[in-house]
Amino acid sequence: MSDHRFLRALRREPVDRTPVWIMRQAGRYLPEYRATRARAGSFVNLCKTPELACEVTLQPIARYALDAAILFSDILTIPDAMGLGLSVEEGTGPRLAKPVRTHADIAALTAPDPETDLRYVMDAVRLIRRELHDKVPLIGFAGSPWTLACYMIEGQGSASFARAKALALEDPATMHRLLDVVARSVAVYLAAQAAAGAQALMVFDTWGGLLAPDMFREFSLRYLTQIAQSSQSHNVAKSTPLILFSKGANAHLEALADTGCAALGLDWTISLGAARARVGQRVALQGNLDPAVLHASPTAIRTQVKQALADFGPHPGHVFNLGHGITPDVDPERVRVLIDAVHELSAPG
Amino acid sequence: MSDHRFLRALRREPVDRTPVWIMRQAGRYLPEYRATRARAGSFVNLCKTPELACEVTLQPIARYALDAAILFSDILTIPDAMGLGLSVEEGTGPRLAKPVRTHADIAALTAPDPETDLRYVMDAVRLIRRELHDKVPLIGFAGSPWTLACYMIEGQGSASFARAKALALEDPATMHRLLDVVARSVAVYLAAQAAAGAQALMVFDTWGGLLAPDMFREFSLRYLTQIAQSSQSHNVAKSTPLILFSKGANAHLEALADTGCAALGLDWTISLGAARARVGQRVALQGNLDPAVLHASPTAIRTQVKQALADFGPHPGHVFNLGHGITPDVDPERVRVLIDAVHELSAPG
Repeated sequence: MSDHRFLRALRREPVDRTPVWIMRQAGRYLPEYRATRARAGSFVNLCKTPELACEVTLQPIARYALDAAILFSDILTIPDAMGLGLSVEEGTGPRLAKPVRTHADIAALTAPDPETDLRYVMDAVRLIRRELHDKVPLIGFAGSPWTLACYMIEGQGSASFARAKALALEDPATMHRLLDVVARSVAVYLAAQAAAGAQALMVFDTWGGLLAPDMFREFSLRYLTQIAQSSQSHNVAKSTPLILFSKGANAHLEALADTGCAALGLDWTISLGAARARVGQRVALQGNLDPAVLHASPTAIRTQVKQALADFGPHPGHVFNLGHGITPDVDPERVRVLIDAVHELSAPG
Repeated sequence: MSDHRFLRALRREPVDRTPVWIMRQAGRYLPEYRATRARAGSFVNLCKTPELACEVTLQPIARYALDAAILFSDILTIPDAMGLGLSVEEGTGPRLAKPVRTHADIAALTAPDPETDLRYVMDAVRLIRRELHDKVPLIGFAGSPWTLACYMIEGQGSASFARAKALALEDPATMHRLLDVVARSVAVYLAAQAAAGAQALMVFDTWGGLLAPDMFREFSLRYLTQIAQSSQSHNVAKSTPLILFSKGANAHLEALADTGCAALGLDWTISLGAARARVGQRVALQGNLDPAVLHASPTAIRTQVKQALADFGPHPGHVFNLGHGITPDVDPERVRVLIDAVHELSAPG
């Protein structure tokens, strides 16, 4: 299994063709997902029921020639396990019933124990691994400390996360206290997913790119580094490649590559060639087609795939993906065009 | 008036202190704005009534020690004058009743004549100039061709502008036809604002940063260059400095500086020092505090201002601003703290 092209690419070893998976590949654009989601009653219940989480994780694997499965879950499982009360409404996005607002709120937080407080995630990982029958590797994931802290302070998504940023500017010590407990939680959570069977791990720093450079280094990068370092000190996790995806933070690519991660996720605002030139041989790269490309014609999709492959060039270390999650309004047949084009156009001529 | 520190800074001449203005300074965070807006009945009526547009333009100038006024208007006046039917609802943002969807829609578009089709804007510029009594210079503005085309195709804002991008990928010739008529419209509109009295001009490329690099160059940068070049061939406009603001497009800073513009607007995801090092002496820089800073304490705001000024360094060519528009939930007294801090901390010691 460690010979699967997805894991080989993450180790920057030669592959027979470029591996491909798609962020949010188990999602609302698939009718079979919508059916399971309806049976689950709520998004949170879907995440918290291992059998259902397993079912939707496997749906895109059954439908397409994907090279990796990704655990179906949510980045806010950690704040939920800390007692903040997660709910997710269709259309309005996730909400935490009890955001942290005071020093006392933050001081009261403790790192959840994965095998007790987040048992449903670990059970889902074990079940998915069993049901995958080693067809493709399984990716586990978590949100970045900065991204989780943003949600924990605001209680929901925000265009600017002004409250979180204001706390960081006014009272950095308190913000660091929050980030520290979240970073420790993320590190043990990822290690537990690896122990339960995840063969690669990914950290989504969805809101890191909203920070000014000094703040990015102090409040996001520092904790990404801590997690990458920590994963190397865990027995199981150290052999499990870690992918960091800091959306909108291409200015910091070299620093992200120096964290000790195996690969960087890229959004589509940088060319794969330019990114490779900047990070050299330090890490593999994952990405990075604009998800909007899936709204274009099959011919245009194939042209974009060809261009992305040429842009990366004949080097090892590329995992094809979108530069952000697939959106619910995409035609599933366009996804097939993309995946098949990656395999066909990257095969040795 | 050409000796005003704002215009001197745009020409990269020495100034007594760093000039400052704030994107959306005439806006909902001000109670006097909300009062005029209520009297106007609708946002569009506020834009289209020169006396009311003048009134709100002058409100922040009366309240703060700002160094420039900016015409109160909307970037969608051009599509509206093309017959697309602009409306703006509080909360949901602007809408165009008749988006362009077919080749025929696009072929039917013609560039509006500013002094007839957009007379209300020109009248507002003339009235504001008169009422300003040369207290501070007046900035005119327009949306970028790419940004206007996005709205014209989608009919409203969008997280991804997937329809506009899909057209660009599938049928670039049609997209260029649209961008061409919009770019010609923007160029004559800006020249007419300068002729009516605007002493500086700004182009907001709000959605350029959503494009992959090749697409940015082909569908945004090309038309920004066309506008910058065109402004230099107009009698009045050529002596009127042009500021380009391509949000989220810091990867393209050198290319933007080469368009022939006088200054670049910057968002907060790049440090002023790093930006200055990259563009050298070619252009002035405007920006770039994160608007979220205005949610922090007065002490934190002053610290951030001091840091931004130090970051730019003791060079000519800095216009202080936020890195994006001020948000409606800001306390007007925090804005005063910011403006006063810029003047105080940039004054010769």
